[in-house]
Amino acid sequence: MVQHSAGLDIAFGALSDRTRRGILARLGRGDASISDLAANFEMTLTGMKKHVEILEGAGLLTTKKIGRVRRCRLGPRRLEEETAWIAKYRQMLEARFDRLGEFLEHSKGARS
Amino acid sequence: MVQHSAGLDIAFGALSDRTRRGILARLGRGDASISDLAANFEMTLTGMKKHVEILEGAGLLTTKKIGRVRRCRLGPRRLEEETAWIAKYRQMLEARFDRLGEFLEHSKGARS
Repeated sequence: MVQHSAGLDIAFGALSDRTRRGILARLGRGDASISDLAANFEMTLTGMKKHVEILEGAGLLTTKKIGRVRRCRLGPRRLEEETAWIAKYRQMLEARFDRLGEFLEHSKGARS
Repeated sequence: MVQHSAGLDIAFGALSDRTRRGILARLGRGDASISDLAANFEMTLTGMKKHVEILEGAGLLTTKKIGRVRRCRLGPRRLEEETAWIAKYRQMLEARFDRLGEFLEHSKGARS
């Protein structure tokens, strides 16, 4: 579970902000310019640029300059490692609960 | 996709650090005291306490004082919302790729 640590740090960090998650949800409905996004989220252009840079650095969106406008598009990062990490955590948690359940079951049996 | 924003912020933030993910993986193998964890990760007790507090705040571990020792245990947060959020992102990404594919297919047909 330790491989690709830097990538996971960056992706989870990028997802830890509700505005950034909102931007991704917005791009799921179609590409948008940084000014569109700034207007959608009632934010300054400078503020929005910072969020877009973080998401781009995490591979969660790409930008392309067309004339004077920078367009944002979802992807390409598929969050496969992040999905796998969370699935592994949930599996560990289930296993811990199962062991606790067995222990309680065993203790009950020993008392009766 | 906007509900439970604060919870998602906190959970993704907690997961955005490789040491904290390492602590969870370690607790998956069994409960541990903060001193055990500090030794495992070659970190000061103060540094480890901060990580444990963040994970506890995110519901990813619980602590219990037994005598003079504070024990850490995995859970109870199941990361269900986080799993759902990532699944939704991946679904949006697939849909965007599909639409792009259809567009390219259509353009190809128009040219031939």
